[in-house]
Amino acid sequence: MLNLKHVAISSFNENVAYVHSDCSAYKVDDIKTMTKVEIHGGMQPVYALLEITDDPKIVKPNELGLNNEAFRQINLPEGANVSVTLAPPAPSLPIVKRKVAGNILSANEYAAIINDIVAKRYSNLDIASFLVASGSFMTASEVLAMTEALIGEDVIRWDNESIVVDYHCFGGVPGNKVDIIINAIIAAYGLPMPTTCSRSLTSCAGVADTFGVLANVDIDEDKLIKLVKENRGAIACYESLPIAAANKIVSKVERHIGFTQQQHLAASILAIKLAAGITHLVVDIPVGPNSRVKSTNEAMRLRKLIEYVGDMLSLEIDAVITDGSEPIGNGVGAVLEARDVMKVLRNKPDAPQDLLEKSLFMAGRILEFDPKLRGGQGYAVAKEILNSGRALEAMNRAIYAQGKAPQPQLGHLTRDIVATTDGVVESINNERINKIGILAGAGQYPGAGLDLLKKVGDRVEQGETLFRIHSLTSTDFAYANSVVDGNNGYEINAKGY
Amino acid sequence: MLNLKHVAISSFNENVAYVHSDCSAYKVDDIKTMTKVEIHGGMQPVYALLEITDDPKIVKPNELGLNNEAFRQINLPEGANVSVTLAPPAPSLPIVKRKVAGNILSANEYAAIINDIVAKRYSNLDIASFLVASGSFMTASEVLAMTEALIGEDVIRWDNESIVVDYHCFGGVPGNKVDIIINAIIAAYGLPMPTTCSRSLTSCAGVADTFGVLANVDIDEDKLIKLVKENRGAIACYESLPIAAANKIVSKVERHIGFTQQQHLAASILAIKLAAGITHLVVDIPVGPNSRVKSTNEAMRLRKLIEYVGDMLSLEIDAVITDGSEPIGNGVGAVLEARDVMKVLRNKPDAPQDLLEKSLFMAGRILEFDPKLRGGQGYAVAKEILNSGRALEAMNRAIYAQGKAPQPQLGHLTRDIVATTDGVVESINNERINKIGILAGAGQYPGAGLDLLKKVGDRVEQGETLFRIHSLTSTDFAYANSVVDGNNGYEINAKGY
Repeated sequence: MLNLKHVAISSFNENVAYVHSDCSAYKVDDIKTMTKVEIHGGMQPVYALLEITDDPKIVKPNELGLNNEAFRQINLPEGANVSVTLAPPAPSLPIVKRKVAGNILSANEYAAIINDIVAKRYSNLDIASFLVASGSFMTASEVLAMTEALIGEDVIRWDNESIVVDYHCFGGVPGNKVDIIINAIIAAYGLPMPTTCSRSLTSCAGVADTFGVLANVDIDEDKLIKLVKENRGAIACYESLPIAAANKIVSKVERHIGFTQQQHLAASILAIKLAAGITHLVVDIPVGPNSRVKSTNEAMRLRKLIEYVGDMLSLEIDAVITDGSEPIGNGVGAVLEARDVMKVLRNKPDAPQDLLEKSLFMAGRILEFDPKLRGGQGYAVAKEILNSGRALEAMNRAIYAQGKAPQPQLGHLTRDIVATTDGVVESINNERINKIGILAGAGQYPGAGLDLLKKVGDRVEQGETLFRIHSLTSTDFAYANSVVDGNNGYEINAKGY
Repeated sequence: MLNLKHVAISSFNENVAYVHSDCSAYKVDDIKTMTKVEIHGGMQPVYALLEITDDPKIVKPNELGLNNEAFRQINLPEGANVSVTLAPPAPSLPIVKRKVAGNILSANEYAAIINDIVAKRYSNLDIASFLVASGSFMTASEVLAMTEALIGEDVIRWDNESIVVDYHCFGGVPGNKVDIIINAIIAAYGLPMPTTCSRSLTSCAGVADTFGVLANVDIDEDKLIKLVKENRGAIACYESLPIAAANKIVSKVERHIGFTQQQHLAASILAIKLAAGITHLVVDIPVGPNSRVKSTNEAMRLRKLIEYVGDMLSLEIDAVITDGSEPIGNGVGAVLEARDVMKVLRNKPDAPQDLLEKSLFMAGRILEFDPKLRGGQGYAVAKEILNSGRALEAMNRAIYAQGKAPQPQLGHLTRDIVATTDGVVESINNERINKIGILAGAGQYPGAGLDLLKKVGDRVEQGETLFRIHSLTSTDFAYANSVVDGNNGYEINAKGY
């Protein structure tokens, strides 16, 4: 037996156990490679990766150390008696091997994998293996199975509501934060809309990052229910809600490996919405050569997949294929995007028109879920709500109710990227813009990002600013500068002038 | 700037940097997920995963901690001034995404990935993504490209030797340790045979584990060259040699995720042999329904693949398809396998005949690489060398020269698994036997494993022992017992009696 010690290290979602090299109870000198151990003594065994130290200030030979993640899970006081053994492989790992070999997995097999992930039986490495293996192909039935498995057991209940709406964009278009404007319009109209969002996975800002600039997004289930009851609208980071536990673990690994497969993303989005108790969902699938979805054919396949899963799980879905050829709005990065959103809600003359129009269009589609509204009237109703200032009022109520956030500072290290010729902006490459923004520090710091002063179709003169880089640290600034000179993502057609 | 501190934790091949939550130089409270950082101050930037602590005994706010792996790499004294920044993604990671999407990669792309892995620009998660993504399919050119990339820059030179031979088994057959017997026979004959082997990846014992029971296998390049010069034979764990650095990193990740794709294994084996300076190689491809390679067709494809890569890289290969339908010998696990090997070398009457015959057959194939030997005489020469005791003498010389190992104890927790009916053993499932052995502690402890007292074709009576489990810890023993009752891997044909 060993004495439990809390080693106050946070390892981002990975359970770690620390054992002294002269451990009195577990022989470690034969161990040559990464090893998963099982710690007994709490209510349930806790699984952790083993790390070895010979520093008694970290753990003594008669101690077992657990990092923050594992210590929280074992839920015992320091000094408690625990024992440690080699963990057998997670029961579902052979299923992952079958997927690597190209097999189609059953619903029970997806459930077994997701259960093991929630039980922390998978290391992050195991999760990455599963994601990459299943990412190469999944049938529609497999996506359905994975969606069901990801929902988990806890679903938010909206008693007395016949419809609960939400919007989700498939992503790949920098700056697209219509979600926040839509929520304000729908809340002002009066449909219950608990928007569940997340922080950036691979983009410069997730909806939770951008709305997090304006208000607190880490709200719990009771508060979310109360907010929607009182104000109809609310925007919460789903991480703060007790839903879709497996998805939280999986998406951290996805973020680290830097990519998300479309079918995983579909399963993840639908699972979160179903766990949030949504009944009616508009899904936005932007298509563009540098968007996540590259062609209309691909978008059609994805739409049918999402509709199939929605039908099987009783989620009413309106999947809309939209233009994803260039960034939406001017700001890319949380602070700059929040500025654009507030300009639209405040009916400012310099508000980005593409962001405004897309918000009205999507809000219109959601409003038409309301049986009381005549077909085709959604857009006009949305426009009236925005123009009248009722959407702004709803937004201000939401910000006040969720708690105003301390405004983060906009990156003070700036550089203007200028046109090298007169002409017309012919295209802006989403992926390149995203990459420059990420290197500038967006995704890490809300105040970092790009301000796109010119958009497709705009005339520019030589020397005129196309966009401005904002960074907070000199390293990020240097990274962004090092890639922007090779290719700034803009194509200027000189003949068009 | 921060002061460097050595945090004496070993994390099995992953560089880790520890920063205090109130770090004076790097703001960490916005960090919500796994982050890779770049540490400056040494000759080269060092890349590490970030972990955060609020315990000043681990690191103070003005310190940057590095674990054993990263501290060794930065090669600076404690207290040195270092700085830390967010690391940009490894340049070759987009190539991995292209592989996930199903593309064929070029030789330059494989080289870029392997270079980044050696430079520690990939976390273990990134490596797992690459392995699983490329594991789903690779063309022959891709396997060639990966092999070349894995060889690396350091190749052992065998001056004054016209041929340098080795043997490698593709695996999947428990107990197959012909490698050690072959080495003794070839050394006695006089061909230079520096066998490079590894510890168990997914089996109960690697050749390095089994020979490690008899002698020290961690020998360096100078010693290996000296041993082969003096004794012609030697068996070294390739991990102790300065070759194939990328493969060492990659195979630790493979071991953790618990599987190896055939094409990776081919690239890995050939790269190690080429880096070890081998000119002539016998590759053994065992085929059986529960072996790694399941069908003769599959084995033929693999043979052609290996021959193609060998031809392109000037390695003479004799690829032999063998019977992998049941375990070889009686022992499964390092100590028990070493016992079998010594019985064969000592010409004991109870030596396992299948191990003996396979060793002679394979040694014969290797001997025939010698231009001086008449075609078809290899087997007879090998048999004469073994029967005369010259192989045993060569083995004893090798053990003495490499350094005798302290004999590890055989697992004292034992259980006999008995036949439930009279009959004839019809089949023994390799994968099941391997699984029971692994759970019994083999792969972790040399003394754990299974002793197979009955083999295919043997008559058994009800209650007679089929095999014996040996464990060293009660947990391992319990694991093995928990699976053996469901399916012990033996099929008994009752009618055959």
